[in-house]
Amino acid sequence: MGTVTLRSGHVQPVYAGHPWIYEQAIARVDGAPAAGDPVRVIDPQSNYLGSGFWSPKSAIPVRLVTRAPEERLDEAALVRRLERAATFRRETLRFPNDETNGYRLVNAEGDSLPGLVVDVYGDVAVAQFRTAGMKRHEDALAAQIARVAHVKTVLGAAASVSNEGIEDEHRVLRGNDPDGLSFRERGLEWSIPRSVTQKTGYYFDQRENRAHLEQLATGRVLDVYSFVGGMGLAAARGRTEHVTCVDSSAIAIATGAAAAEHNGLGAKVRFEKQDAKKHLPELVRRGERYDVVVLDPPKLAPTRRHLDSARRAYVQLNKLGAQLVSSGGLLVTCSCSAAIAPSDFVRAVNEGVRGARRDGILVALGGQGPDHLTPLAFSEGRYLKTLFLRIE
Amino acid sequence: MGTVTLRSGHVQPVYAGHPWIYEQAIARVDGAPAAGDPVRVIDPQSNYLGSGFWSPKSAIPVRLVTRAPEERLDEAALVRRLERAATFRRETLRFPNDETNGYRLVNAEGDSLPGLVVDVYGDVAVAQFRTAGMKRHEDALAAQIARVAHVKTVLGAAASVSNEGIEDEHRVLRGNDPDGLSFRERGLEWSIPRSVTQKTGYYFDQRENRAHLEQLATGRVLDVYSFVGGMGLAAARGRTEHVTCVDSSAIAIATGAAAAEHNGLGAKVRFEKQDAKKHLPELVRRGERYDVVVLDPPKLAPTRRHLDSARRAYVQLNKLGAQLVSSGGLLVTCSCSAAIAPSDFVRAVNEGVRGARRDGILVALGGQGPDHLTPLAFSEGRYLKTLFLRIE
Repeated sequence: MGTVTLRSGHVQPVYAGHPWIYEQAIARVDGAPAAGDPVRVIDPQSNYLGSGFWSPKSAIPVRLVTRAPEERLDEAALVRRLERAATFRRETLRFPNDETNGYRLVNAEGDSLPGLVVDVYGDVAVAQFRTAGMKRHEDALAAQIARVAHVKTVLGAAASVSNEGIEDEHRVLRGNDPDGLSFRERGLEWSIPRSVTQKTGYYFDQRENRAHLEQLATGRVLDVYSFVGGMGLAAARGRTEHVTCVDSSAIAIATGAAAAEHNGLGAKVRFEKQDAKKHLPELVRRGERYDVVVLDPPKLAPTRRHLDSARRAYVQLNKLGAQLVSSGGLLVTCSCSAAIAPSDFVRAVNEGVRGARRDGILVALGGQGPDHLTPLAFSEGRYLKTLFLRIE
Repeated sequence: MGTVTLRSGHVQPVYAGHPWIYEQAIARVDGAPAAGDPVRVIDPQSNYLGSGFWSPKSAIPVRLVTRAPEERLDEAALVRRLERAATFRRETLRFPNDETNGYRLVNAEGDSLPGLVVDVYGDVAVAQFRTAGMKRHEDALAAQIARVAHVKTVLGAAASVSNEGIEDEHRVLRGNDPDGLSFRERGLEWSIPRSVTQKTGYYFDQRENRAHLEQLATGRVLDVYSFVGGMGLAAARGRTEHVTCVDSSAIAIATGAAAAEHNGLGAKVRFEKQDAKKHLPELVRRGERYDVVVLDPPKLAPTRRHLDSARRAYVQLNKLGAQLVSSGGLLVTCSCSAAIAPSDFVRAVNEGVRGARRDGILVALGGQGPDHLTPLAFSEGRYLKTLFLRIE
């Protein structure tokens, strides 16, 4: 088995629980491991730190799977983690249940399975393999996912990770190819055609924030970057009068409109195909006001390099959003950029709100749901920030 | 009306929405305001920034109540804010309701009423006055609190703020002195004798975290620094077998034991009078393990000066806590020190957990409930951090 020796001065974060071994932290590689081979990671004094799979071309050549010196990093080790992940969802989080059968089964580092993300949609699981090590075990993992999640069908999600040698199309790993993904979230029934699916298909990370929106929302609601209307339909179930969902994807809004109808909310929800960047300034110009505005844009800072431009984009978007909220109304504003820390996002949103000559009062700060767990030392994994603001 | 002119270089935080004017930000005071008088705050170019009450001996001589140049800072302005606070609780948060009639009605800066905190306990409100300006309007505010919160009794909480000239004992401001505070939180009925009450009497800020604990907890639970058992009783209502609450206050645990009985949870919950600092090491020595450990210590960092010692205390406490959690169990660990930022607390807890040779996986990061709102720019107000960790 290959051995990766770290440079002195690069051991502390690993000891503190961070699961990533960066390229620049590596002093030496012995044993000529191939991509996807298990490797041991040791400190300069040869103390064992952990084991992971070798990704020679990645800026993060090892992501630790285990820290137990006695544990062999083989397929059985991965299956144990898969079982633990499923047990935690079933016994602690109680997924699936009567209200919700769409949830994240495996959240990569948070479940000690870096490189693997699995979402369950009713009787279909969708897995994404993002490292050479996980990819090598794709078939075995697909079979085990079907077993532990009690699903018949396992799909492989598209993934393009060039430095891991991964160029995956959407594919069927187990069972038959379904037309789409059907599932329930807090009693709302969704059916998402395969053509609309992003990532593994839907965004379970906002589940708890949707529940909170449903409790708080009143009056007229604008859901911007609505995708299929997860936020909008939650608001529509609450004490609201009318919900407008806008998104630039025709298929997403068609899917959302069908879901609104199917869930008996069709009369209350309207979907509009709009480019938010053009549409929001137009609504401001027209003097429109809403009791609730939801802003859930796509990732504006894909990496730290984009931080400045992303920050400016958040300021501008939230300035527009705040201008559209009636006095005492609610602005629900989200960032899914891991590169933007919660305190940075709060500052950017505040700058936007103050730029609109309004005051923002924080009612709640939500994050990703409990099925999206992360190692305590791994702040990179805590990407989602959802602020609930009263706008004065 | 007195006028406070800021130094150049000290205007930006105020413009960004921060409500505090620090002593060192003040260039000049005109008009000889007395303690508690309303004053206008202007920038070096004489632009209006806002108005607040004058606290000449405080390190924060002004806390802005309004930023509207046309608004007069009189009693009517305070009453408008009180009404808005009550309307937000009633219409948006739906407090009181059948399940919960104990909640925070006014959260100082978050409701543009700096210096005033009001908690409602059923038909009693408890108000704390912490600035000379608010204190001056005590009688009028007490009458208005009774009106907007629909309560008969308004109590004044004890408060000692020497640089505001406040040295208040517990007192009755309206109605008759009740024996104690009786209220419901999420269906649990509490009755807290006056002798046990801390701050205004109870801690509503953990409401949502108690609800989350109730959902997640299983097996055997240890609730450390339990006070009257808010966390412990919530856990007892969940899928747990047994809950042990420990606190050093005899009257707090007697109150908690009575509440457990009253709510039909007496057989499941035991209260023990223990000093956590001695008791936790003893439990570790005995090799005790729990499925859930809750750590909710009093404020360990009262000010920034205590930051280092508080940090060490959090590390040590969480090391002990992690040692007491069974593999795959839950550690629920809290900090109510505003001086410790969420990311600092995460780091300190991680250091403790790793020091116990365990791994911590973050399941959820909770904060204070939505009745404890804060201006977006006022991070000082967001003091509560409650981490839900799976301990491997």
